[in-house]
Amino acid sequence: MKSVFAPRGTTEQIEEGRVFAPKFDGDGLIPAIVADAWSGDVLMLAWMNDEALVRSIETCEAWFYSRSRGKLWKKGESSGHVLRIIELKVDCDQDALLLRVEQVGPGVCHTGRASCFYRAVSLRETAGHTLLLQFKKAEKVFDPNVVYGEGAGKDKTAE
Amino acid sequence: MKSVFAPRGTTEQIEEGRVFAPKFDGDGLIPAIVADAWSGDVLMLAWMNDEALVRSIETCEAWFYSRSRGKLWKKGESSGHVLRIIELKVDCDQDALLLRVEQVGPGVCHTGRASCFYRAVSLRETAGHTLLLQFKKAEKVFDPNVVYGEGAGKDKTAE
Repeated sequence: MKSVFAPRGTTEQIEEGRVFAPKFDGDGLIPAIVADAWSGDVLMLAWMNDEALVRSIETCEAWFYSRSRGKLWKKGESSGHVLRIIELKVDCDQDALLLRVEQVGPGVCHTGRASCFYRAVSLRETAGHTLLLQFKKAEKVFDPNVVYGEGAGKDKTAE
Repeated sequence: MKSVFAPRGTTEQIEEGRVFAPKFDGDGLIPAIVADAWSGDVLMLAWMNDEALVRSIETCEAWFYSRSRGKLWKKGESSGHVLRIIELKVDCDQDALLLRVEQVGPGVCHTGRASCFYRAVSLRETAGHTLLLQFKKAEKVFDPNVVYGEGAGKDKTAE
């Protein structure tokens, strides 16, 4: 797939240069970390294709590509919880993005939480048996049934 | 590939349950965001396979899988810049991880920076032509030639 972005250069150009040349994977996607611009909290990880990245840059609002639904989506298109991009960063080898955002809504997770990362894995356990999760800051900050409509949040179509 | 982790359950079990059932992609990998546990700064995005995740949980030090080198690696194995895992979180659908870490060294990036996200993309530009990057907090906090050996950092073998 031809990208509208600059072609990849040498390692030196990619790492130390001023040209944005994002690397999309074999499926045409690049991972995008979303963090709150003010608190710094990591809110979610989503994926962008070429078009989602173009729209995000041009509008300063976060657009993603849903792998499960196979389509472009604007964060907040059904919930109203738009993410305004304050800063869009790229990593050293330009194959991952970091969006520092201002949230319009109370939270980003389709389950109704502030962040998608509301559970922690038990550490220093021996893997190979069932590992348990602990809920952390997992209180719901909005009701997904109200925001997305009954049942919509459950199959993540609410994204 | 058989995982040592619990099999995936229903959407309800995955999102609201206490069983850790991480989803690895078609290549057997799961993305892991790394953030400093104290400052909250997002430092890097790396990938784990089943074995890297097992070792990370058991040792509380970050292990990853290098896609470019096709092998397991412990962060800090050559630099000494080990990442101690304070908290390992998983997202709602359990296909992304967040490591909140305590850093032993001054920075995580193989280029010598504190974070791999040291450049920002110009926003509100029209994509389709060359987009420029601005360096942000991009000063080097260590010399990769000293830490990894001359030239090693340049092809990212220093990871």
